[in-house]
Amino acid sequence: MKVKITEVGPRDGLQNEKVPVATKDKFEFIQLLIRAGLTNIEATSFVKKESIPQLADAAELSALLNWNGPVEFSALTPNTKGYEAAKNAGYKEVAVFTAASESFTKKNINRTIDESIQGFKEIFTLARQDGIRVRGYVSTVIDCPYEGKIDPKKVLEVSKILLDQGAYEISLGETIGTGVPTEVERLLELLLKEIPADKLAGHFHDTYGMAIANVEKAFSMGIRSFDSSAGGLGGCPYAKGAAGNLATDDLVYFLEKSGVPTGIDPGLLWEASSFMEKAIARELQSRTYLATKKKREA
Amino acid sequence: MKVKITEVGPRDGLQNEKVPVATKDKFEFIQLLIRAGLTNIEATSFVKKESIPQLADAAELSALLNWNGPVEFSALTPNTKGYEAAKNAGYKEVAVFTAASESFTKKNINRTIDESIQGFKEIFTLARQDGIRVRGYVSTVIDCPYEGKIDPKKVLEVSKILLDQGAYEISLGETIGTGVPTEVERLLELLLKEIPADKLAGHFHDTYGMAIANVEKAFSMGIRSFDSSAGGLGGCPYAKGAAGNLATDDLVYFLEKSGVPTGIDPGLLWEASSFMEKAIARELQSRTYLATKKKREA
Repeated sequence: MKVKITEVGPRDGLQNEKVPVATKDKFEFIQLLIRAGLTNIEATSFVKKESIPQLADAAELSALLNWNGPVEFSALTPNTKGYEAAKNAGYKEVAVFTAASESFTKKNINRTIDESIQGFKEIFTLARQDGIRVRGYVSTVIDCPYEGKIDPKKVLEVSKILLDQGAYEISLGETIGTGVPTEVERLLELLLKEIPADKLAGHFHDTYGMAIANVEKAFSMGIRSFDSSAGGLGGCPYAKGAAGNLATDDLVYFLEKSGVPTGIDPGLLWEASSFMEKAIARELQSRTYLATKKKREA
Repeated sequence: MKVKITEVGPRDGLQNEKVPVATKDKFEFIQLLIRAGLTNIEATSFVKKESIPQLADAAELSALLNWNGPVEFSALTPNTKGYEAAKNAGYKEVAVFTAASESFTKKNINRTIDESIQGFKEIFTLARQDGIRVRGYVSTVIDCPYEGKIDPKKVLEVSKILLDQGAYEISLGETIGTGVPTEVERLLELLLKEIPADKLAGHFHDTYGMAIANVEKAFSMGIRSFDSSAGGLGGCPYAKGAAGNLATDDLVYFLEKSGVPTGIDPGLLWEASSFMEKAIARELQSRTYLATKKKREA
């Protein structure tokens, strides 16, 4: 089974960046990601323009994308209105977002978990009719910034509901990067009793330097789908300025050195990350990106 | 079996730092490390003053250390002269340094591996008489910056020679941080056929973000001794400015969250790292250190 890498840099990566990135630069970034070999790209989010100004150009950006190529673009859609906009923009895949922690869901999207899932019902129904895939994000799968340790049973429960509604894959968000491999193992042991490995993806954050160790554990348990962002784009909203998403650069390095082909050219990926580093005007934090940068500068 | 953490920040960490650190600041750093709970500290290196100016104060620094406390200090000793100086300074443990790569040994210490080992013979003899422990560093155990992949058999051969001569422990140096868990596994599978796990230590670098994943693999195979440096002090000489040693902060985070007690107080360790960050006037790169720093600043 091939490894699937979902590049979330343009959406999850950029949404916390304060420096506004021009639509043409986001498009150029996506083109560079495609040139590097990425085939699954979460391009944007169809949210209210006020709520995430960085992604207010969702429709304009989407209009620039090449919908006839081999790349599968997806967009986050928090509600039916966002779903309709994504569909009109040409997306064949959308993502919905909830969490395994009540307090996180409450603070993050001002709903209970159940309300959030009720809110997606219409999206699932419409998507089935429209032939659009739905990906489900379940956040805070190990720890929650507000209530601490999350019971794996809660993750299983929420994941199963989303799968039952028609999600083709659940992205398990280790949102704050505090999880360690033994915790990933405990979680997956439970999930894999009822959910096939090919319906689960790992979405790790490198806040405490644990991301690759967690990927390694998940991989050893059969998970073959991982989310990451070029250069490690995206911070941790709970420790601003700290490392955010697992970097695609580090993930590709890990997989390729481990003998797992990714189809991604590390040099071209570096170019994509470097392009966005200039656009957001702050140094990216991917270890592999930085080591390569220092070598190139030497 | 308890985990042993050898703090190499004052030696391995500082030797590549360009900003000269005052002896009294090194001493204060060591005091803060002790306060945080570290019990094995590689304090300095008795090399020719010209070769590593940052460590030219080895004797002065050592004179400040508390030799009657519970902390085990060690010093790197490249030759018999260095050994005698370390002994006179009060050290009950010294470390010798070689590698599993001929080209690395040649470029790094201008000797063949065999010559380097011949050069240690007298140290081992004297140490036996003096009741001083010798720790053996074997560098480039997975990859070499000059010759690429290293044959695990070579690591076994060199490690066994050092153990036969009387080294109580071999620190396996993954010098350039390019190794991944499958490579660590392959190496340890071979070594553990002939060397007990309690004679081996893992010395990983985080240049490509792989350090914790490699620690996790080594730990799962029975290794219980790891080297690290506070805050991730120390760069990678082959990609200047890139991340260096595995950070003690990340290692302690990983172990404690995994349920392995370290006896180290993360908050006090943070204070030690923070103190040295100011002294070297550049931002440290430990993920855990930075996440904690950002949280404290928030």
